[in-house]
Order: sequence, then structure tokens, then C-alpha cells
Amino acid sequence: MPRRILLTIAYDGTAYSGYQRQKEDRVPTILGKVAGAVHALTGEEPDLICGSRTDAGVHALCNIAVFDTESTIPAERFAPALNTRLPEDIRVMNSRQVASDFHPRHVRTVKTYEYHIYNGRIMPPVRRLYACLCTYPLDVDRMRSAAQRLVGEHDFKSFCSVNAQASTTVRRILSIEVEELPQQENPGSMHDREIVIRVRGCGFLYNMVRIIAGTLMEAGRGSLEPEEISRILDARDRTKAGPTAPACGLTLVRYEITL
Amino acid sequence: MPRRILLTIAYDGTAYSGYQRQKEDRVPTILGKVAGAVHALTGEEPDLICGSRTDAGVHALCNIAVFDTESTIPAERFAPALNTRLPEDIRVMNSRQVASDFHPRHVRTVKTYEYHIYNGRIMPPVRRLYACLCTYPLDVDRMRSAAQRLVGEHDFKSFCSVNAQASTTVRRILSIEVEELPQQENPGSMHDREIVIRVRGCGFLYNMVRIIAGTLMEAGRGSLEPEEISRILDARDRTKAGPTAPACGLTLVRYEITL
Repeated sequence: MPRRILLTIAYDGTAYSGYQRQKEDRVPTILGKVAGAVHALTGEEPDLICGSRTDAGVHALCNIAVFDTESTIPAERFAPALNTRLPEDIRVMNSRQVASDFHPRHVRTVKTYEYHIYNGRIMPPVRRLYACLCTYPLDVDRMRSAAQRLVGEHDFKSFCSVNAQASTTVRRILSIEVEELPQQENPGSMHDREIVIRVRGCGFLYNMVRIIAGTLMEAGRGSLEPEEISRILDARDRTKAGPTAPACGLTLVRYEITL
Repeated sequence: MPRRILLTIAYDGTAYSGYQRQKEDRVPTILGKVAGAVHALTGEEPDLICGSRTDAGVHALCNIAVFDTESTIPAERFAPALNTRLPEDIRVMNSRQVASDFHPRHVRTVKTYEYHIYNGRIMPPVRRLYACLCTYPLDVDRMRSAAQRLVGEHDFKSFCSVNAQASTTVRRILSIEVEELPQQENPGSMHDREIVIRVRGCGFLYNMVRIIAGTLMEAGRGSLEPEEISRILDARDRTKAGPTAPACGLTLVRYEITL
């Protein structure tokens, strides 16, 4: 009887074409690397079922994946054993056994994403892989006002890439926080700071958080009124929302599951 | 009459053998790259005088350097013009003219360094280049108690690499803060957090901040009593302090100069 193992996986998405394994591993993916490590450890060809399908360049502190194994390795030993077979930009933070019918996308989950914006003239190199640069001054109060209009259950068709194939575009956002991080002042760049958009929700459409971030930046720079958000939602039209913000600013920071 | 230009330089030190240019550029350095960019821009061979000589792998938000130029390029235009000629892991944040006798190491400066420690079992990949991993639980109160005994003017010979060539090992530390960053909780790693040691001082010996960080980690994990710090200082013996913490955890975050 095979056991089902749940992995919690953290990664730096910079070097990868996304989380989900691609056909024949033609491009490097996080789960392609994890599958290779499981194979090296057990000799099996695991069928990894992924949690959140993050895009190329997106990071995670705690995405999940499950696979079945006939091996006798104790569930909690998979994490350290896989880490010795993985590159440093992918770490299995935790491994444990779950019910054999557990499926990451058939249970209630709550995910929290953070979108980081560096608001200044020039991107400090230490943040270039984990934040996007916005050179226009951003008004955080306007961003918060716009964000609050997205909280709750809405049809997010305007905030979903047109090539997405979801059966419904209705989703529920539990909260959106817009936070200014305390910043060291630098000579010549006294007003630079990092802004975090933290979105917690029960499910997200393709590119939804990045489109929300792009739209809140438009509100923050004054080219969109916070009140317009309701009309953008009602339009159910991708072209009415702001641009899709760059992938590198996005990190999946929390994944709550009901086992 | 040449003009003296002051550059404020931010960098990700991961790929470099330190800030200061090495003889004949045999190894990649931050200022080797900056000198190449100045040469490409002006045709001159600049003699860059560096601010803080950070080690291989150490990062900065705002190190400084000065050079003399006969070119007619406006001082403030050097920053954007050099950035188009530099790799993304080095950015000139600011450029301005200073007095022709201004020398970064002959003026009073106050520098602030941050040392970041990830205190958990496994390093999250997004922090691997900017923090060091400490798998022992750290008691932040003990670290603070030890840190306070280093504040003020002391002979820091015990906190200086033995191969350093400073004329005096007396330095003044203005403040040391030990801060816990708020952390997202991850399944299976509920007690992980990042700890920042922030040291502000008028001058530092070779490896001094990294040896302070290594010693405070010893205090935090209980293998050294905070009260022992005074005896370590008095000993004037490098072997009495803790280990030199890894370079990647260190970032120069603030550089105060009196022009």
C-alpha cells in the first residue's frame, strides 16, 4: 500500500520556469527538480500533485506538493534526504504522511501572497530579485483605499489573464494589507522605501495577485481613483484593470490547509 | 582642473571578491567594475578611493568612492550614465561633486552595518544570499545583554582578524541593536525567525562586525555568558571571541559623512 507524502517547499523562483513540472522537463521547474531528487532517493518516478501553480520568477516560503511512494523511508526523513539532492534555491522545509486521498486542490486552503514594491529612483541590487521597482511616488493611503474595495467575494474576471481557463472567475479575498517597511535612509535617496501588498484569499486566478499589484500601483501614483475599482470589477474585462506587475516581486508566504 | 566626484554605490556582493579593486583586476571586485564603467564613459583610467573596504560576499546599500575626472559630464549625470554600463548587481545610487581634497577615510564617518541571522532548521532559499543560518535556538535577550557590553570605546583587538594591519585596535561603537523581525509562520517551522544585529560605529576593524555577530550568536545559544564579554575585550586575544560569522549575512546599510 503506497503512502502519500506531503512536502512543504520553499524556493527562489529566479532561475525557474515556474513551480509546476512541464512536459518532458524541457524547461527547469521547481517540481521537475523535486521529482528528480525523489527519483534519486527512492528509484521511483513520482507523480507530484502541486499546490499553488506559481509562475516563472515567483518565489515561495511554503508551497506544497504530494506524491505517493512505496519506499519505507520515514515520512519526516524525506525533507533532509531530498535537500541533500536539491540545489540551494529549492528547500523542502517539511515532509509528513497524509491520508492517501488527500489532494492539495480538493481541500479548503487559504493562501497569503506578498507583493514587494521598491519605491525609489534606482533599485538597490540586494532587492532586485525580490521586489519590483516603481519610480513614481506612491501614495499608500490611496493604495489602501483601492485595496479595500477588492476584499470579499467578487467576480475577478477583470483581474485574470485572458488566457486563463478557470471554470468560474468568482473568488473570495479575505484581506489585503498595504504596509510600508521601515527603511534605512540613504544619502541622495531619502524617500526610498519598500511597500508590501499582502493578499490573503481562498483561491486565486491566473496572474490575479500580480494584476491586483499593478492596479494598486496605478491607484498609488494617481492615475486611477480608488473609487474606480468597483467599476473595474463590474466590467469583467481584463483591459480595465492595471498592468500585470513583474513576477519577481511576488512571494507565496503562507499556505493554510485543512488536513 | 579636475573635479572630484563622490559616488554612492549599492551592491549585491555575492559574485564579487570584495569592494576594493585588486591588483590588475585578477578577481572581480565592485570597484573594478565601477572603474571599467568610468573608463567606458570618459576614456579615463580613474583612481577610485574607496570608503568601507567590505569583504567578498558582503553587501551594501550605500558604500562610497571618489575619483577625479577631467570630463565635462555634469556630476549628477554620472549615476545614470554609469548604471547603463554596470551589471544589475551594482548600482550607483547618487553622484555629486565634492571638494578636490575630500578623502573618504580622512573625514569623520559613522557607518551602520546589519548582520542578518535566519534562526531555524532550514534556510529559506529567498534569504540564502542575505542571511546566515543558525540552527540553535537563540535567546535574543542574552544577545542584547552581551551586545550592550561592546558599546562605547574599547580596544577591540579580540574582535579583529589576526592578519589585520591597523595601527590601533581601539574603536568606538555608538550602538548595537538586536531586533527580531516579524516572520510569517510556516507549517512545520513555527519558531523560525530572522534576527538582525545592527551596529553603528565610527570605524571598524577587519572582520569586526562578523566577529561580533559570531560572538553574540554564542551568547544567544548559551555557550557564552553575556558577562564574559568584558573579559574577552580585556584579553586582547582573537581566540577568546566567537567565530567569524559568514560574509553573506552582512550589509552596510548607512554611511554618514561630513562633507
